[in-house]
Amino acid sequence: MPQPRYDVIAIGNAIVDVMAPCDDALLEELELRKGGMTLVDTARARTLYDAMGPAREISGGSAANTLAGLAALGLECAFIGQVADDQLGEVFAHDIRAAGIDFDTPARAGDPPTARCLIFVTPDGERTMNTFLGASQFLPPAALDEDTIASAAILYLEGYLWDPEEPRRAMRRAIEVARGAGRQVAFTASESFVIERHGDDFRALIADGLIDILFVNESELASLTGKASFEDGVASLAGQVPVLVATRSARGAVAVAGGERVDIAAEPVDRVVDTTGAGDLFAAGFLSGHVSGAPLRECLRRGAVCAAEIISHYGARPEADLARLVAERTDSLLQG
Amino acid sequence: MPQPRYDVIAIGNAIVDVMAPCDDALLEELELRKGGMTLVDTARARTLYDAMGPAREISGGSAANTLAGLAALGLECAFIGQVADDQLGEVFAHDIRAAGIDFDTPARAGDPPTARCLIFVTPDGERTMNTFLGASQFLPPAALDEDTIASAAILYLEGYLWDPEEPRRAMRRAIEVARGAGRQVAFTASESFVIERHGDDFRALIADGLIDILFVNESELASLTGKASFEDGVASLAGQVPVLVATRSARGAVAVAGGERVDIAAEPVDRVVDTTGAGDLFAAGFLSGHVSGAPLRECLRRGAVCAAEIISHYGARPEADLARLVAERTDSLLQG
Repeated sequence: MPQPRYDVIAIGNAIVDVMAPCDDALLEELELRKGGMTLVDTARARTLYDAMGPAREISGGSAANTLAGLAALGLECAFIGQVADDQLGEVFAHDIRAAGIDFDTPARAGDPPTARCLIFVTPDGERTMNTFLGASQFLPPAALDEDTIASAAILYLEGYLWDPEEPRRAMRRAIEVARGAGRQVAFTASESFVIERHGDDFRALIADGLIDILFVNESELASLTGKASFEDGVASLAGQVPVLVATRSARGAVAVAGGERVDIAAEPVDRVVDTTGAGDLFAAGFLSGHVSGAPLRECLRRGAVCAAEIISHYGARPEADLARLVAERTDSLLQG
Repeated sequence: MPQPRYDVIAIGNAIVDVMAPCDDALLEELELRKGGMTLVDTARARTLYDAMGPAREISGGSAANTLAGLAALGLECAFIGQVADDQLGEVFAHDIRAAGIDFDTPARAGDPPTARCLIFVTPDGERTMNTFLGASQFLPPAALDEDTIASAAILYLEGYLWDPEEPRRAMRRAIEVARGAGRQVAFTASESFVIERHGDDFRALIADGLIDILFVNESELASLTGKASFEDGVASLAGQVPVLVATRSARGAVAVAGGERVDIAAEPVDRVVDTTGAGDLFAAGFLSGHVSGAPLRECLRRGAVCAAEIISHYGARPEADLARLVAERTDSLLQG
């Protein structure tokens, strides 16, 4: 097996986040499910945008955020995702390339426009997301460069993108290519509603041994396993994937791999400003340790430090010097 | 004279700021004049954007920022400015309306696109701006609703927009309308390069008694008066405009009106993150006092508090509750 050209290649939604603070009363008025992610159509996106306060635009997308974290930590990364040939598509492409990530998926002409996620952030820092998938859902299998996928140590996939049909086909094909090249496949479940719709698919992927590293949060774990208790859920999945990472927001995280289980606390944060991207950056920190063969505890600590950075400011792309933070706070044995 | 419908109507550039942190070495490499504002064409904008790190987009524009501050302080405001019929134009229009400001200038079809300002922010918080004027420079005199202009207590104009020909004609006409309706005209000089190009125009406006309230910073004062010393500059202009406001960044500000002169210190800030919009928000605070007939010192203190808020975070639109800040920090006799 040739030396990998990339540490991680990811397939994900190519989204620009449109973020504004709001109070809880506005969520109620708009009938938004606090803390959740909901897909919206053009008309609903218009209604929500009209009701939103002055906003800022910052590139997002779950897997793309994870890559931005990995690139900031010095890993070689590539991204595959579909933007439209419009201004927000340019913004997304600029930001991901400026983060040092290779991104070559051609922009798609015509409608729909580039995906955006309207994010309402309440004073407690909780984010409520409303995603207009736009061009993102039309990522065709033909957009995959199979040689590139085969050349990455880890293929990283986001569950959000499993919902639309074309990207799902593209991701299935990417898994075949990566497995065929002897690479690892990492998967983030993304949101419990995705599991409600596609749980059988995910369980089959796991049962078939196609997932090497699985990231879930508490509600995703419950949806995936049907177990109401966190511990029962962990016990039920732990034997089925080589590496299981289960995050629990302020209550820390658990990883199980090679028969070993490690629990860690969450990294303290002065003030939670905006939780958007917490899971994405946890995955970045964890994988940055994993690719270097770090001990499980070190991988988890890296995840916690990266998640703490992202929730201390608006937006799901890192602002601080992540590599320095990780070096300072994890007593890392890995330098670089 | 009928009761004004608006407190302030402004004519200005309709711009989306594209902001990224950078180090001083990048400014040198790109041959950027630190702290300045430079107009750039499409090719230069492309070069600079390609060299810029991951960015965020936040609505900007000097006069529009001032209105956002005024609206946050509870004043009734309207904005006139030209966006293109594109995604960044939608972003600008959304953000200004969401701030509670009336904005009815129709978007302009076709090229060029909506204006953007590429802002490099160095670790000292200084911003270096590169403005692609795009659609903004094609604001036609026909876009003015003269009844609306006549219905505002203050017409606020930004010097930046004096440079392109069509908006300059529109602004000259707006001054006639406002003066004809017995309203006040406020003018911000914006940047010394504008004065270098149009100083004779500005001096003629002042000599003709068409400017009631003039905002300048130190370098603009020097360009406008030809006096190297700040005190000489103030002395030279003070008698020529009813209200002169001269800001000096960290060294505070001076106002002269009705024979009275007041000097104030700058408001302390924990950390200067990004100075973009400092002058714009100083003007907002000052005018919010002025329209209520507040004493000169109170007007200046309001300006200082608003400027301090804006430089404590990225972006030139207020994030904190400005009205509360002003009430807390100015011992304001004016409530609301």
